[in-house]
Amino acid sequence: MISLVGAGPGAADLLTLRALRCLQRADVIFYDRLVDPEVLAHARPGAERIYVGKAVGACDWPQERIDAVIVAAALQGKRVVRLKSGDPGIFGRATEELAAARRHGIPTEIVPGVTAASAAGAALGRALTERGETDRLVLATGTCRPGDDAPDWGAMLMPGTTLALYMGVSQAARIEANLLAAGVPDRASVEIVSHASGADQRIVTCCLGTLARTVRRQGVENPAIIVIRRPKGELSCSALHPLRRVG
Amino acid sequence: MISLVGAGPGAADLLTLRALRCLQRADVIFYDRLVDPEVLAHARPGAERIYVGKAVGACDWPQERIDAVIVAAALQGKRVVRLKSGDPGIFGRATEELAAARRHGIPTEIVPGVTAASAAGAALGRALTERGETDRLVLATGTCRPGDDAPDWGAMLMPGTTLALYMGVSQAARIEANLLAAGVPDRASVEIVSHASGADQRIVTCCLGTLARTVRRQGVENPAIIVIRRPKGELSCSALHPLRRVG
Repeated sequence: MISLVGAGPGAADLLTLRALRCLQRADVIFYDRLVDPEVLAHARPGAERIYVGKAVGACDWPQERIDAVIVAAALQGKRVVRLKSGDPGIFGRATEELAAARRHGIPTEIVPGVTAASAAGAALGRALTERGETDRLVLATGTCRPGDDAPDWGAMLMPGTTLALYMGVSQAARIEANLLAAGVPDRASVEIVSHASGADQRIVTCCLGTLARTVRRQGVENPAIIVIRRPKGELSCSALHPLRRVG
Repeated sequence: MISLVGAGPGAADLLTLRALRCLQRADVIFYDRLVDPEVLAHARPGAERIYVGKAVGACDWPQERIDAVIVAAALQGKRVVRLKSGDPGIFGRATEELAAARRHGIPTEIVPGVTAASAAGAALGRALTERGETDRLVLATGTCRPGDDAPDWGAMLMPGTTLALYMGVSQAARIEANLLAAGVPDRASVEIVSHASGADQRIVTCCLGTLARTVRRQGVENPAIIVIRRPKGELSCSALHPLRRVG
């Protein structure tokens, strides 16, 4: 059995009770770069802990190698936990690992976790959706598969939307340009939560028009969630008063 | 202090450790219709438990009344937990309660939780995002504020997107019509997870073109997450082979 377990966004106490039980039962735990050491401390003392983190751009642990080692451990009869930061189903590369396990007839389970955007909203002290203002929440990545077109963030950030961008700090200039080109006001407020819920959590706010400069000057680091709200009210204001741009 | 605490999607063991600690410390817990009794069982025996659930369409507990009672309890010096299913920041009406608390100078905190879409993905045994196929996840509501325009689900479901619709079962016919009108293939696969992670979890799958009929015939109930994927591949296939619609 391979359990794909969400470790939550960072803080060790944002682990679920089910994830805790999985950790306590595991023979071997394969964990990501972003998993907090305090989360791993919940594992039983005898459990193997194997780091399979992928630094961005580095290839020590390409996905195929991770797939192979977790399958090999399960085939040895070990109870395998694949511990992923946040929720395994959201930007967690779970598909590849599930497919590898299934090719070998290994049963799998997914233990959902608290995704980083939820922790970012909690850190900001506000909801990600607001009735009548932002009726939808778009979770998107700042990066994409090499060779793919860059995501069109602007097309997603329609009025009535909150956009939460994962790992977008390195793409700040492209995000800013893309959103401005899509008509999002340059005064739209942007909130960046770095290391959401972790000990080194940091919140930086700016306007869309200064996103790239702010990230650069303040040295904002990934993992970070960039939250940009475009309430419904904005559209009507712009439509009624074309000279009055409401951010 | 008022703590807005995410109870998770249903199963009692999908509560976080932090939420558990909040429940154990609370003097009074105001809880929603969708919170599982087993979650409440984590509270200390002496804690007051007050149901403030809103049945859809019913007005026993309009939002203003909930705001008033949680504020009144906090002003009495009680440690208040406002327990919300899922994550308080995602379709949780947290904004109103936070604003009410702040108007009275009451400190607040948000304890993020596992949102229902994550539990739905876990139930389906697959990821909500797949690298190179679906690079974004849109969380949206099936309903909206009375008087507001119906959400344009089709505009959100661009190729490369997974759409997870909360509480959409009663709007199935409108969702189906809206998505078909937006060009989503009628053979697109739809997965409905009712009571995700709960004891009465139920999964129903169909094609987009039979969504409304399936919901009606099978008696699918809210709370449910309707998951509709529109991978990038679909667009290229349709573009290259206009007669070959890939669902």
